[in-house]
Amino acid sequence: MSGRHFLTRRGIALLEFSSASVRKTSPVPFKTFTANVRGLTISRDYSSTSTVDVELTSIRYKNHVQRGNFSTLQPDDVSFFREKLGQHRVVTEQSDLAGYNVDWLRIVRGSGTVVLKPKTTEEISIILKYCNERNLAVCPQAGNTSLVGGSVPVFDEVILSTSLMDSVLSFDEWSGVLVCEPGCILEKLNDYLLERDFIMPLDLGAKGSCQIGGNVSTNAGGLRLLRYGSLHSTVLGCEAVLADGTVLDLMSTMKKDNTGYDLKHLFIGAEGTLGIITKLAMQCPSKPNAINLAFIGLNSFDKVLTTFKRAKSDLGEILSSCEYIDAASMECVTGNLSLKLPIAQSPFYMVIETSGSFGEHDEEKLNNFLEEIMTENIVSDGTIASGSTQVKDLWALRERMAEALLKDGYCYKYDLSIPLTVFDELVQDMRTQLGEGAKRVCGYGHLGDSNIHLNITSETFDKSLHNKIEPFVYEWVAKHNGSISAEHGVGFKKRDYLHYSKPNEAIGIMREIKNLLDPKGILNPYKVLPDTSSSLKL
Amino acid sequence: MSGRHFLTRRGIALLEFSSASVRKTSPVPFKTFTANVRGLTISRDYSSTSTVDVELTSIRYKNHVQRGNFSTLQPDDVSFFREKLGQHRVVTEQSDLAGYNVDWLRIVRGSGTVVLKPKTTEEISIILKYCNERNLAVCPQAGNTSLVGGSVPVFDEVILSTSLMDSVLSFDEWSGVLVCEPGCILEKLNDYLLERDFIMPLDLGAKGSCQIGGNVSTNAGGLRLLRYGSLHSTVLGCEAVLADGTVLDLMSTMKKDNTGYDLKHLFIGAEGTLGIITKLAMQCPSKPNAINLAFIGLNSFDKVLTTFKRAKSDLGEILSSCEYIDAASMECVTGNLSLKLPIAQSPFYMVIETSGSFGEHDEEKLNNFLEEIMTENIVSDGTIASGSTQVKDLWALRERMAEALLKDGYCYKYDLSIPLTVFDELVQDMRTQLGEGAKRVCGYGHLGDSNIHLNITSETFDKSLHNKIEPFVYEWVAKHNGSISAEHGVGFKKRDYLHYSKPNEAIGIMREIKNLLDPKGILNPYKVLPDTSSSLKL
Repeated sequence: MSGRHFLTRRGIALLEFSSASVRKTSPVPFKTFTANVRGLTISRDYSSTSTVDVELTSIRYKNHVQRGNFSTLQPDDVSFFREKLGQHRVVTEQSDLAGYNVDWLRIVRGSGTVVLKPKTTEEISIILKYCNERNLAVCPQAGNTSLVGGSVPVFDEVILSTSLMDSVLSFDEWSGVLVCEPGCILEKLNDYLLERDFIMPLDLGAKGSCQIGGNVSTNAGGLRLLRYGSLHSTVLGCEAVLADGTVLDLMSTMKKDNTGYDLKHLFIGAEGTLGIITKLAMQCPSKPNAINLAFIGLNSFDKVLTTFKRAKSDLGEILSSCEYIDAASMECVTGNLSLKLPIAQSPFYMVIETSGSFGEHDEEKLNNFLEEIMTENIVSDGTIASGSTQVKDLWALRERMAEALLKDGYCYKYDLSIPLTVFDELVQDMRTQLGEGAKRVCGYGHLGDSNIHLNITSETFDKSLHNKIEPFVYEWVAKHNGSISAEHGVGFKKRDYLHYSKPNEAIGIMREIKNLLDPKGILNPYKVLPDTSSSLKL
Repeated sequence: MSGRHFLTRRGIALLEFSSASVRKTSPVPFKTFTANVRGLTISRDYSSTSTVDVELTSIRYKNHVQRGNFSTLQPDDVSFFREKLGQHRVVTEQSDLAGYNVDWLRIVRGSGTVVLKPKTTEEISIILKYCNERNLAVCPQAGNTSLVGGSVPVFDEVILSTSLMDSVLSFDEWSGVLVCEPGCILEKLNDYLLERDFIMPLDLGAKGSCQIGGNVSTNAGGLRLLRYGSLHSTVLGCEAVLADGTVLDLMSTMKKDNTGYDLKHLFIGAEGTLGIITKLAMQCPSKPNAINLAFIGLNSFDKVLTTFKRAKSDLGEILSSCEYIDAASMECVTGNLSLKLPIAQSPFYMVIETSGSFGEHDEEKLNNFLEEIMTENIVSDGTIASGSTQVKDLWALRERMAEALLKDGYCYKYDLSIPLTVFDELVQDMRTQLGEGAKRVCGYGHLGDSNIHLNITSETFDKSLHNKIEPFVYEWVAKHNGSISAEHGVGFKKRDYLHYSKPNEAIGIMREIKNLLDPKGILNPYKVLPDTSSSLKL
């Protein structure tokens, strides 16, 4: 039997998983990835879909968005940028621009003609002051892994890339506080911290490409939120440059700071529409000494719910992830990426991770938990892993899901908060709604956070299918008092649906705050807030 | 030997604490408390200081604050309120008003002539709309346990008490999400949750009196923040009424909701200056199955630091509190409240709490940790408790500190975030600065959160002593990149010192946001933001 046995409290191997669990997880094909098995990549040529050109946003959505009354980039502007940044940090070659104009999902494409690569807060301040005076719109871009079209221009916005601002500025081993620049790649930060016995408080599939400034700007959630809380708790301070070039220093490195309104929260999740984050202080947890992972199959959704409740009570403080995958999602990741399922096929799967300070205790808790749910026939099949390779292989089945779905062709993605009791009901209702029109309808996500990723695929973008999905899905979510964007943000794709989760009074105040901090609206226009023209709806 | 032995990994009692630890903690005198041994009380007569009248804020601080250009309450206004709320929920009797005008610390006193006790959001909306039109200033008041003069009027503001809005509206046992009104007393909410195997994510000394609306409005920290994070993470949604009566519904009950700017964060810590919170959704953790407490004495501050670092690594995920008490603080709580010190006198003390799902594991971890720091002579003496009475008795030495200090006469309180390595240095420097002028200079607080409570006492308020403390203390904190308010808020007492922790650009934006949401400035005036008149400084 591969992996480890489930042990009883008395330390004797009494239970074994079904024969399916003896299969060793087949190696994950790492080669298409630039950074890490768990990381998404922004390279443009690894997918079969790369040969299909992405339609310009200005054409595909021509009835839904109009270019704002911004200036158009002139040669003098480029000269100014070159004077301030030097030749090489002002990109204007058409071939070099392509990757900055298309999103990772290949659903939107802008026509930006310049990419600026500042290295300092001062440079960003100079750029924004200039753009604000010239009325040039600006699209801030970090790792360009947005799933809602938030990180590429809609029209010809100046692209401001934070990629070269990738330094760790300090780390305090007493307090666990990391101070860094926004362009640091999440995985590299985690590696840096691991060497010092700490970890980043967030972890997500795109870790190999995404940048921390982008994570904070979209209030990314990810796989560890259940354990370490949201970025509103772990970001202690930030520095941001406002549209007019003002540098706003909110750089507390203290866990507690109640001196006035806590303005940093405005920038967490604002997707660069209120300012550009140029520095961050993060509270980082100690590295767990032991990580264990259980991968289980279940025959009914009720059993998924029971298992989740039991995991919370039995695993308590060591539970660090509780993920959900339905059969249709699993078929996609195993089929499209040729990954082997390590257990018997089931209607539902769960990935349960524990992270703790004392391995023996954690194993005992996990074994007791698994023993009980096996004995009570709640779980039909499962396997556990503790070595880092085994853990990575099992996680790949969950984390490579977005990549696998893209191989279907076009992917309609919905990142939703709904009561966890209706996770499967949503997928079933959507399947009924779409009938034969969709290639695949599936759900997976963060059970512990009530956050499901509903995905629907088709060979290519299909407007009629799209119209059957939306607003049906948003109405469904609103009816269940959920949120139409749990952790991916609003970006370009969801801005006109904000009212399904927020009342007019709230959207009105958001607009007033936007107007306060960016009166000309130059920062990441056409994103987050609904179009003010009611005739223009996505 | 009372309490429990420290056990080795092999389960044999090898180590015992010094003879001091065999003394049983003497019973805590509960009788002065209305709610709970751990709760502060707002009753006005239990302290010897109650016979001393508190000077009116308008007189004591007459050179520092001027009444704003607000209307004065007229009989017609009272008639309006009576028409809307009924006779009994509009308090105007002088004797009944006294308790609402004086703060718990007895450092500020207003002269409000009416207290309104609404029961619904709609009533608050009607009151605020009326006050805004009439230009009547309003002081929102929850449990009135503010330590910075935030919860009582400065002049004659209308007092709006949330005390009658004290219902739990729902609790979801799947997600652990509690929805309640702002007037719920923290301890009562915790009791409600305990019956359902959950707890509140925050805990503080004032739990017997403080209300959750006040906790959220001041972004209270407390004893569990180390484990469960700040209110910016655990408050999922709120409803607030703005100055003009607009009801702002931000009542998400979902852990993740990235639909636009997360406006609820503006109300967390705004101390009622931007709106009045009328409903809350809180993420509540599961009740730990086991709580253990160690109370230890240490001979040097370096050993405090070493113990903290070891506690973080050895206790990891079960560490739920790590508190610090210096000898001067301990002398105060034992002397002024006749509490017995359960261990030998030491220059420093720590309270270390674990909360976990499996008692045996927790005890083993705690015993191993204590065994090691005892063997290495890091700790000089200690005792542990696990029964709820023992735990409460030990906690009383930490939690009744604020009450004990008040018995000295007048207390100058500073709630500061500074690097934990300089906790004791601050106290020593302040002692040097004040010489013989102070009755007592002491420090205690939340080591795990870098949050120290610096306290200085004198028989009565002493202006010259005050001037020796301030701005010295704020300059000291600013030099160490700390925060002049960690968890108590700014209130009336600290508003003119905001610039020690926040730059002008940030304070400017705070003002603009205040102006956006409350253009006439009727909500809790003279609080949080600095006086705009530079000639008026506290």
